[in-house]
Amino acid sequence: MEENENPEEDNQEILQNLDESGQTEELVEMFEELPTPDVVEFLEDKSVEDIIAYLKELEAEDQGRIFSDFAMELQLRLCRTLERRQVAQIFRHMYSDIRADLYQQLDKEEQIGLLPYLDKKVREDVIILSAYPRETAGGIMGTDFATVFEGMSVAQAMAKIRHDAPSKDMVIYIYVVDDSMVMKGYVTLKDLVLADPNAKVSDLLNEFYVSAEVNEDRESVAQKIEKYDLAAIPVLNSLNQLVGVVGHDDAITVIRAEQTEDFEKLAGVMPSQEGEDYMQTSSVGHFKKRVVWLVGLAAMGIISGMIINEYQNVLEHFIILAMYMPMMASTGGNTGTQAATVIIRAISLGHVSDSDWLKIVLKEIRISSMLSVCVAALTYFKIVFLSFHGLLPEGFTMSFVGLTISFAIAIQVVSSAIIGAGLPLIVRRLGGDPAVVASPAISTIVDITGLLIYFAVASALLGVS
Amino acid sequence: MEENENPEEDNQEILQNLDESGQTEELVEMFEELPTPDVVEFLEDKSVEDIIAYLKELEAEDQGRIFSDFAMELQLRLCRTLERRQVAQIFRHMYSDIRADLYQQLDKEEQIGLLPYLDKKVREDVIILSAYPRETAGGIMGTDFATVFEGMSVAQAMAKIRHDAPSKDMVIYIYVVDDSMVMKGYVTLKDLVLADPNAKVSDLLNEFYVSAEVNEDRESVAQKIEKYDLAAIPVLNSLNQLVGVVGHDDAITVIRAEQTEDFEKLAGVMPSQEGEDYMQTSSVGHFKKRVVWLVGLAAMGIISGMIINEYQNVLEHFIILAMYMPMMASTGGNTGTQAATVIIRAISLGHVSDSDWLKIVLKEIRISSMLSVCVAALTYFKIVFLSFHGLLPEGFTMSFVGLTISFAIAIQVVSSAIIGAGLPLIVRRLGGDPAVVASPAISTIVDITGLLIYFAVASALLGVS
Repeated sequence: MEENENPEEDNQEILQNLDESGQTEELVEMFEELPTPDVVEFLEDKSVEDIIAYLKELEAEDQGRIFSDFAMELQLRLCRTLERRQVAQIFRHMYSDIRADLYQQLDKEEQIGLLPYLDKKVREDVIILSAYPRETAGGIMGTDFATVFEGMSVAQAMAKIRHDAPSKDMVIYIYVVDDSMVMKGYVTLKDLVLADPNAKVSDLLNEFYVSAEVNEDRESVAQKIEKYDLAAIPVLNSLNQLVGVVGHDDAITVIRAEQTEDFEKLAGVMPSQEGEDYMQTSSVGHFKKRVVWLVGLAAMGIISGMIINEYQNVLEHFIILAMYMPMMASTGGNTGTQAATVIIRAISLGHVSDSDWLKIVLKEIRISSMLSVCVAALTYFKIVFLSFHGLLPEGFTMSFVGLTISFAIAIQVVSSAIIGAGLPLIVRRLGGDPAVVASPAISTIVDITGLLIYFAVASALLGVS
Repeated sequence: MEENENPEEDNQEILQNLDESGQTEELVEMFEELPTPDVVEFLEDKSVEDIIAYLKELEAEDQGRIFSDFAMELQLRLCRTLERRQVAQIFRHMYSDIRADLYQQLDKEEQIGLLPYLDKKVREDVIILSAYPRETAGGIMGTDFATVFEGMSVAQAMAKIRHDAPSKDMVIYIYVVDDSMVMKGYVTLKDLVLADPNAKVSDLLNEFYVSAEVNEDRESVAQKIEKYDLAAIPVLNSLNQLVGVVGHDDAITVIRAEQTEDFEKLAGVMPSQEGEDYMQTSSVGHFKKRVVWLVGLAAMGIISGMIINEYQNVLEHFIILAMYMPMMASTGGNTGTQAATVIIRAISLGHVSDSDWLKIVLKEIRISSMLSVCVAALTYFKIVFLSFHGLLPEGFTMSFVGLTISFAIAIQVVSSAIIGAGLPLIVRRLGGDPAVVASPAISTIVDITGLLIYFAVASALLGVS
């Protein structure tokens, strides 16, 4: 037998070796033994014909388990190659949540063609689960769970669980329901195992349970799983009937999807459909996701031009001001982006609330004052000691111009931090998602305020307008 | 009894009502019934004295369970108020991973003072777990797990589990070990429940299991839990001995922490210590996290000034060029940020690999070409139709100058997308974290390349230098 110190790497090797030496029987045996994702990784490199040939060697339950883990695209291709009777057999043993997703991806005609081949139970399950919107608890829940009744003894409950033997590997919570599937509470499998077989289920019942409503937003469901450290959460309809279960693995999927969405918003990219892949999305698709923000911000950027036009005269006298304009803009953008990101993150982790706004603004003023001293000092020394032979008008020293520009940059740093921290709070207060005040949006806004500050300070101190 | 359709909200109300009407006995009973996070939420608003008074009413196991869920800061304050004997009692029933974290937060003298009061088993457990670095599997694992031996019958295994009765609520996997704790595989509690009591554990054994090494990075551990949909992963030492378990709840914590780190990196903020809170971090702390990137990028921004100095002559002839400089810079920054974010995300989700670099660059060229047409068209129409009475030198039409600027901006958009997508790939190839090529870094770099493009195009087409 193999040593399995590092099983997930070795497993591919085991499969490759058996495949290359043509030991098909042993290979198929390994499909039953190894963790599903490793088997799937191996199979996904094969042709559709090969995959079908391998699947046929497997027992029905293993077929369903492995098929459920394939990428959706491959599931669809296989469905379109296999006979309907075979598809129906695989459907019978698939995980219910993935089965419903797959069914929804089929064309209308394919769905209608398949339905007569499905068992009544599977058919109903697929149709009901497909009816829930994707972004709700109903849209991500499965129906592979175990139930017992309150009046049962522990021994009877164990017998029912043995009989029902739900297909998912992990049966952790056993839900206690009445005849109409109204939720009463739960017991853990561990509770049952540890209890006296003659005890009543009602003695072990946890009646204060955490649940999700079937129409609840899936992010809220994921947050409950996270907050309460649940392995799975029961999903109830408006009559308090148990209709499904969402597992901790689904919570991780939702958290990942949410994370991608936040990243994209921060960068001024329209949030993508869940599960979209960079390489699989077409260039036109990417273009559409980026163009709105980009052109919108470019249009706003034209305001910068208007401001510069206003101060043409100042610029013509002090061409040195043009040289420090880009640094002014980018330092403001960077300060604003830093502040905005830290605040947006703090909001989404629940570390700050609306009522903290004044504390936050004061804190950002303190932080950015320190930052502005550093940046202003850098700018001043740069201008005075490393300056190019600037064509200064008579009567102005480099030191005075340096002080002027440094002073403007210091104000810019402080104001950018306030804007960067304040905008997400305002958007949140107005009911929006703070992440839409993205890094590009902040940069563009502080570009504009920065130019106003720059030229106002310069024309005041240098006495030109 | 209460209706519990929306239990997690109602639960606070239940506790508040019992508290206000002075029904302490019923209140404490509820502490045993309700989900731990709800009880903790209620208690954390109370004074340390009140919390201690409530804890004393509880059974030892419930004390440990609830105490484990308190914020670390509160745990420390309670430890410093309670007598050592009482702390030791709470320690006995805490979750092992949280207990080790708490122990590490105590001062050296407090640790030494507490040790004699701890049971031998607890003392050893705390000392061993505290020895592992925080960012490893060992640093986040617990030791609350159940083990059985290969040679046992199912009935014997069940008896052992009943006897050991590990304290964590969720016992899902039962690990099969030999006399020296060397890992042989696992069975699920469900397998045991469903099996014939006379069957052998070895018949049910899953010998191809996924495990983590004790020194493995915690992000890699979280990824395994995610990939294999595990409720918990066993942690092994170099001798293949089972030394701990990491649960799916820890995986979510790690994924969240990682997410915050990526956000901060993207914004040019030095990654924070895990668990840091915006409001709790001092202003000086925030300053330190931001100043390095900000001043570093400002220093790089001085290069922009040198480029403008170089092209002073062009700028003096065409002051209109100054007006579109900010838009040029910010559009480049935005395009680069969009491309970089999308690529960094795709890398971290494993959607693209190093060998895809040429495909990615070609794809970004296609996407940005479409974007550049939009932005250039906007710029051109703006300059030609909405222009201020610019002081153009004789012989130049607004249309020609508009074409020149638009052309430069189009090149800027394409080159920024290539830089934004390419830099993370290069950093990754060199073994770095692609997220460090943050939005501010990209913006500053494309500011510089943008100015070079802008003035090179302008001086070439307009014939000045």
